[in-house]
Amino acid sequence: MIKITFPDKNTKEFNQGITGYEIAKSISPRLAKEVLSITVNGNLWDISRPIKEDAEIVLHKWEDEEGKHAFWHSSAHLMAEALESLYPGIKFGIGPAIENGFYYDVDLGNEKILTDADLPKIEQRMRELVAQKNTYNRKNISKKEALNYFDGKGDEYKLELINDLTDGEITFYSQGNFTDLCRGPHLPDTSPIKAIKLLSIAGAYWRGDEQRKQLTRIYGITFPKKKMLDEYLEMLEEAKKRDHRKIGKELQLFTFSQKVGSGLPLWLPKGAMLRDRLIDFLKKVQVRYGYLPVSTPHIGHKDLYVTSGHYEKYGKDSFQPIKTPNEGEEFLLKPMNCPHHCEIYNSQQHSYKDLPIRYAEFGTVYRYEQSGELHGLTRVRGFTQDDAHIFCRPDQLKEEFIKVIDIILYIFKALDFDNFVTQISLRDKNDKEKYIGSDENWEKAESAIIEATNEKGLETIIEYGEAAFYGPKLDFMVRDAIGRKWQLGTIQVDYNLPERFELTYTGSDNQKHRPVMIHRAPFGSMERFIAVLIEHTAGKFPLWLAPDQVVILPISEKHNEYAKKVSKILNNSDIRTLIDERNEKIGKKIRDNELKRIPYLLIVGDNEIQNEEVSVRKQGDGDKGKMSIEKFKNYFNEKVENLLKSIDTK
Amino acid sequence: MIKITFPDKNTKEFNQGITGYEIAKSISPRLAKEVLSITVNGNLWDISRPIKEDAEIVLHKWEDEEGKHAFWHSSAHLMAEALESLYPGIKFGIGPAIENGFYYDVDLGNEKILTDADLPKIEQRMRELVAQKNTYNRKNISKKEALNYFDGKGDEYKLELINDLTDGEITFYSQGNFTDLCRGPHLPDTSPIKAIKLLSIAGAYWRGDEQRKQLTRIYGITFPKKKMLDEYLEMLEEAKKRDHRKIGKELQLFTFSQKVGSGLPLWLPKGAMLRDRLIDFLKKVQVRYGYLPVSTPHIGHKDLYVTSGHYEKYGKDSFQPIKTPNEGEEFLLKPMNCPHHCEIYNSQQHSYKDLPIRYAEFGTVYRYEQSGELHGLTRVRGFTQDDAHIFCRPDQLKEEFIKVIDIILYIFKALDFDNFVTQISLRDKNDKEKYIGSDENWEKAESAIIEATNEKGLETIIEYGEAAFYGPKLDFMVRDAIGRKWQLGTIQVDYNLPERFELTYTGSDNQKHRPVMIHRAPFGSMERFIAVLIEHTAGKFPLWLAPDQVVILPISEKHNEYAKKVSKILNNSDIRTLIDERNEKIGKKIRDNELKRIPYLLIVGDNEIQNEEVSVRKQGDGDKGKMSIEKFKNYFNEKVENLLKSIDTK
Repeated sequence: MIKITFPDKNTKEFNQGITGYEIAKSISPRLAKEVLSITVNGNLWDISRPIKEDAEIVLHKWEDEEGKHAFWHSSAHLMAEALESLYPGIKFGIGPAIENGFYYDVDLGNEKILTDADLPKIEQRMRELVAQKNTYNRKNISKKEALNYFDGKGDEYKLELINDLTDGEITFYSQGNFTDLCRGPHLPDTSPIKAIKLLSIAGAYWRGDEQRKQLTRIYGITFPKKKMLDEYLEMLEEAKKRDHRKIGKELQLFTFSQKVGSGLPLWLPKGAMLRDRLIDFLKKVQVRYGYLPVSTPHIGHKDLYVTSGHYEKYGKDSFQPIKTPNEGEEFLLKPMNCPHHCEIYNSQQHSYKDLPIRYAEFGTVYRYEQSGELHGLTRVRGFTQDDAHIFCRPDQLKEEFIKVIDIILYIFKALDFDNFVTQISLRDKNDKEKYIGSDENWEKAESAIIEATNEKGLETIIEYGEAAFYGPKLDFMVRDAIGRKWQLGTIQVDYNLPERFELTYTGSDNQKHRPVMIHRAPFGSMERFIAVLIEHTAGKFPLWLAPDQVVILPISEKHNEYAKKVSKILNNSDIRTLIDERNEKIGKKIRDNELKRIPYLLIVGDNEIQNEEVSVRKQGDGDKGKMSIEKFKNYFNEKVENLLKSIDTK
Repeated sequence: MIKITFPDKNTKEFNQGITGYEIAKSISPRLAKEVLSITVNGNLWDISRPIKEDAEIVLHKWEDEEGKHAFWHSSAHLMAEALESLYPGIKFGIGPAIENGFYYDVDLGNEKILTDADLPKIEQRMRELVAQKNTYNRKNISKKEALNYFDGKGDEYKLELINDLTDGEITFYSQGNFTDLCRGPHLPDTSPIKAIKLLSIAGAYWRGDEQRKQLTRIYGITFPKKKMLDEYLEMLEEAKKRDHRKIGKELQLFTFSQKVGSGLPLWLPKGAMLRDRLIDFLKKVQVRYGYLPVSTPHIGHKDLYVTSGHYEKYGKDSFQPIKTPNEGEEFLLKPMNCPHHCEIYNSQQHSYKDLPIRYAEFGTVYRYEQSGELHGLTRVRGFTQDDAHIFCRPDQLKEEFIKVIDIILYIFKALDFDNFVTQISLRDKNDKEKYIGSDENWEKAESAIIEATNEKGLETIIEYGEAAFYGPKLDFMVRDAIGRKWQLGTIQVDYNLPERFELTYTGSDNQKHRPVMIHRAPFGSMERFIAVLIEHTAGKFPLWLAPDQVVILPISEKHNEYAKKVSKILNNSDIRTLIDERNEKIGKKIRDNELKRIPYLLIVGDNEIQNEEVSVRKQGDGDKGKMSIEKFKNYFNEKVENLLKSIDTK
């Protein structure tokens, strides 16, 4: 008998060799149907693999990342089998599960070029193979045998992968007629894969190296139920409509230029104003919380990054140093603001009474990304962080965390992100050596974060081993209106930079002490945040933030004069107002402007002029009746103020 | 007889060979005493040089740059003579007149090191030489003879200079025992040099090349009257007190860090807030004038600068290109914002009805300067321009100029710069080929600028030949409180970038037309402007701008609580308020805080607490009596509002 310990610390005895599936079945037949993978003593396993000794286990269903992972990884193997049966001689690179689905990189030789038209045929073959209910079989194999097998197939990619592995740690998985080099885990058999959709084809360099061969990457997704696939495809359709690149163009928020360079957004006036409004909004909140603005250059001498350690760690993969004509100096584009802020901290003496000091900067930083990785505003080469660094005493950590959490919650409320979770990333308990900073400080910081999130009543996930080497952190993950997850705000403790920059404060004991540093960015970056905001709201920004708040639609040309008068009154009251003076029918004007997502449409014609009124329409919500100009102004301003008041409840 | 034409176009006949001095004497003996140099047919001459043919002349006195130039250049030769008599074997580099005085670069050999202690002795020798009333004698000399002369002296510097000259165009000037290679002009003799002060000693590379020998540069200044020297030295003393680097440190506005790099200012909280206030102030003005904010990255692909022409023109002397790890792309730190703004203009189609379009950005740019050239905030390697680019039709130029002038005048008024002149830089009429853009457009633009300045009643100087090759411009030069000149705002017409970026708009004729571009920056740069503002106000900023507006001084510790209450009330009304809680006598608190240039000091003690009052002191202006907190709030806000209202009269 072996002892199995469940996540709730309950234990139960089972026969040696029991499998995860059987354990699940012993609990309930329903669970047995749902379980997809199992964690055994910290390692992910197949649920069909016999457990031979005492173990702590966690069973994973579809709802868990680990469950989906096994499902989609098995689907990748299934697709590979289908491909091999359709295209004999095909060679395989890697085929992992990803956040949504899976892919496989394949080499079809020089003749065959796969197109979207081929995908239904491959899907069909996959369905046929599912019907065979083939089991996924795990097998330990020696390095020599493994090499022999793929040598026989002539698959140089797998040979290269195997050559990097240690003999004795290699496993194969087979199902049906297909065998793959794989660590697993997989489903017991193919039967749960009820719905299959291959999504797209892309090019991908072997091992991400542009010098090597470009393989064909096939993306797909599978589900245990047809309905889930339908919903997913519907979400994809909706996501396409909400694509911030599309809406950003329609609303003239930003653009890119080949001459300026990929991944370097140019903010057009409406976008720049939106960005400024968000910045002003956060600046105001930050003043209230005692932040001090600073402003630093976008480059720093190489020495700065040698001191910070960034040069050694990231130098090779970053924008390269900027040389000067004469003096052999070298500068780097700043990839983060913290080293500059440490130098500002060091420009003056500090006493324990001065702390915490909170330096805030909307600092634009530059990080090199391969051009293939760039994506709209979410993956760029230059972005503006809503950055701040808090220098505090260790005993102030919890209070500072609470204050930063307050700011983030305030922002989420102001911008309609009501669905979010937080993740606390702590040390790996079994490998404390790899972290910098004393045990005592780590414990203090970790419990400060946990207590702070508890006090604020946050829904948290704790991840051990996910902390950076220099400190624990708290991340905020929001779900947008169509259910996608985005990582936004981060609060990160740092024991490393205070050491490297030799930051000190004089304590009440008159001795020098090391402050703790907190990095925090509620938006993350202006670029990414605005992208998420666009996709979350489908471009229908909260009223206070909307680039254009009101559009006036004169019924015919003779009403333009009155429209101008109304527009002037509203603009003078800081209501951002446009006029649609085009010589078009009022019906078309309404339709066109509804599409532009301007919150209020004011129709003006003879009647309105006579009574000094406007006919009010709310975007997507129809007629609101006639109002005097003054009344509309008050009505509008009340809406904005109520919105801001409702969040401004500190 | 020859015909001499005066600047007022009057003419007079003189004997051939008449000199400038004699012409002056023929007008008045007083003028003869004052004249220092003469422009003859566009060339600067000695007033002792015979005029042999008809000529247009301008006589220059001390008040004219050209007069001072001859005076100081003669003084440089005088100093050289003194040096040679004191240090035989000394070799000479160059010795020009500069904006304030003159210098000479000398090589004293490897043994002698000149220090400040040597300067009085040199001054004394100069005075002795002045007493000799030696004449400055001009002599044409062949290249061969010139080389022979300095070969004999063993002066390799002069030999190198002569080698670069064209035979037939070489002149020597001698006075007393000293002979120099020189183009002139000089005074007739040394006697007008009545007051002499050698100011400082510095190192200077021969020909500015760090690879070559470092010479000793001796700075001096001379005047025709002792009183003028005294006033100048007093001004220097005052300038030292107002040095923005000193005040910037005292007021904790900015700092520099060796690790971040020279010439890269770090704005401390008080400075960053001051900067933000100035930016917000200008943003508000710009919105009123129809500017649209944009935001662009701090780097651009090399292609952008190849297109703009900057790469070819400045590439070698600038920060060098930023390479990327993989793709062989090259980026440059942006030295100006205009190419980015051109790309934004080009991202959309424009009709003649849309123009003018005014893109504004507080854009931080980076320009390489040798480290020896850097100086506080006035000469830096990174600075934020209050930049805007106006794209307009040629017929809109004048109106746009007037509007930009309005903005600049508004800013000068708001910031107490009431002493300024403008300079209009036009084409060289005799060499129109070197300018880009049609004759018609140039004429339109030049007369637009002249008319605009006339209509605004500006005091202007017109300089022909000072225009950039791509367009005429208007510069604003302010005089600060101690009489120094600073170049601030610039308005520059540009025909070049619209060509290079192929900018177009559709005219009313439905054809494509080229817009004109105006670059303009009222502050110039935030860094330089704040430096000038500090030196102009000696750190006593206008009330609305002051980093700290009020400091509360509790008479003893028991009054701290009340001080906090008052501070909270004032801060909540956006009055920037501090408390001096130090355990010091009130007299010392008052003295210390007066030095900090905080506009209002509020003293609070038992009496004030009892009556809910504060005792108000105005910095530098003494007691203003007791007021209730509410009354002080109103009194203060009125001061700020009146100040802003008085300028806000559009």
